[in-house]
Amino acid sequence: TITSLANPIIKRLRSLERKKGRTETGLFLAEGARLVMQGLQNGWRADVLLVASSMLSRAHIKALLDVAKASETKIVDVPERLLSKVSRKDNPQAVIAAFEQKHTPLSSLDTNSDKIWLALYEIRDPGNLGTILRTADCANLAGVILVGTCCDPYSVEAVRASMGSIFDIPFSSAGFDEFNDWRSVAQLKMVAASVNGTTRHDRVIYGARPIILMGNEQAGLPEHVEAACDTLALIPMRGGADSLNLAQATAIITYEAWRQKGFV
Amino acid sequence: TITSLANPIIKRLRSLERKKGRTETGLFLAEGARLVMQGLQNGWRADVLLVASSMLSRAHIKALLDVAKASETKIVDVPERLLSKVSRKDNPQAVIAAFEQKHTPLSSLDTNSDKIWLALYEIRDPGNLGTILRTADCANLAGVILVGTCCDPYSVEAVRASMGSIFDIPFSSAGFDEFNDWRSVAQLKMVAASVNGTTRHDRVIYGARPIILMGNEQAGLPEHVEAACDTLALIPMRGGADSLNLAQATAIITYEAWRQKGFV
Repeated sequence: TITSLANPIIKRLRSLERKKGRTETGLFLAEGARLVMQGLQNGWRADVLLVASSMLSRAHIKALLDVAKASETKIVDVPERLLSKVSRKDNPQAVIAAFEQKHTPLSSLDTNSDKIWLALYEIRDPGNLGTILRTADCANLAGVILVGTCCDPYSVEAVRASMGSIFDIPFSSAGFDEFNDWRSVAQLKMVAASVNGTTRHDRVIYGARPIILMGNEQAGLPEHVEAACDTLALIPMRGGADSLNLAQATAIITYEAWRQKGFV
Repeated sequence: TITSLANPIIKRLRSLERKKGRTETGLFLAEGARLVMQGLQNGWRADVLLVASSMLSRAHIKALLDVAKASETKIVDVPERLLSKVSRKDNPQAVIAAFEQKHTPLSSLDTNSDKIWLALYEIRDPGNLGTILRTADCANLAGVILVGTCCDPYSVEAVRASMGSIFDIPFSSAGFDEFNDWRSVAQLKMVAASVNGTTRHDRVIYGARPIILMGNEQAGLPEHVEAACDTLALIPMRGGADSLNLAQATAIITYEAWRQKGFV
């Protein structure tokens, strides 16, 4: 039991709201019993689990704590007030855990299956990133590559928006050249969504092993990146309309590619 | 020129962050020169326009102020500090305007064209709503109907996420029975996205005049609403995946229906 905001564990968990704290500790926050259970069951290691003292007798909380104990997670019960301080929300979830980050190198990704890949080039909005991870998970993608300087997938906002998919979908980070070499060796056909697209996105032949590349929210993709692609796809829009949100455009093109595979 | 936070105009604009303030005044906030220009050019009436004193000499701001003056908008220049207070952001846009809300009755919507409609049943997240308005605008939809108790399309978050589409896409609100009568008279085929869907969303025949119905973020659609639909469509997901974000699901099914129309 901890009741003080000055406790070192609470201070460390509160530091995870910022990139600096996450980098120094190698940890990130996941909130809610369902999400934390998903992380533990998928083999992610939780360092510390905070649980609201008032919820200790609930069946689903007990079940979660049993799983956490079996994986040697430190369990601390705290008043709801401290959960509020860690999550920075007025109505916090009953459970918050700090998980160890995973940094999977490109070379460890399994490129043998005939699945669709997704690459995100310098995307900056953590809400978009989390939403895209969730959609990539739903669309049975092989994995997601963060290319160049992207926002942090382990930020609180990205993890929240991913709704647990952060624990499900393989992802990795790389510079563009390293990424492009990797996908060439893996023989992934690179299809970028672009306002310079020459083929309507539903007329692109994605083939068995495509990698769909999406650009930065404001700037899209730079010229040398578009030049490296096999196809530039254009998602139709009403004349005069501004643009689709990045996550929306990603969902549209990803589901079109998956449709062409008969959703298997 | 206004410099005091206590000025009644500033107080009134600050009240627009909350539903109560928007209801009492019939106004809503739009931020940024591009967005405000779009509103004025589309014939929306701005009551007051705040502009940062330091930006008055910029060409694009001058052009905007000319348009605003022609439409009898009250123009007030203010220090950036007051723009921060109105937008509740550290780095506010140079222009913020209070526009008059429009409440278009169902009966005023033009149902003559062969376009796709969208209906949202009791959706609650203003970010989702704004994003969906933006996508509906891009996909050349006829309009969007908010059915039952939805979040406010004029909230700051919805307007921001709509990226100007709030000024472009026709929308209306109605109770379910009124809505269902209207769409029957207009002979719109109602296709709902549902976990109970029996037809894969890309195998649905949307026809020339469909209305796509999306349910609440948590609860989906109630039984009596699903029973009133012509078709329940199922968007495929990987077995074991949780669910798509509502705005993502809306983009996927909307673009599939539009694809079947050849994107015209």
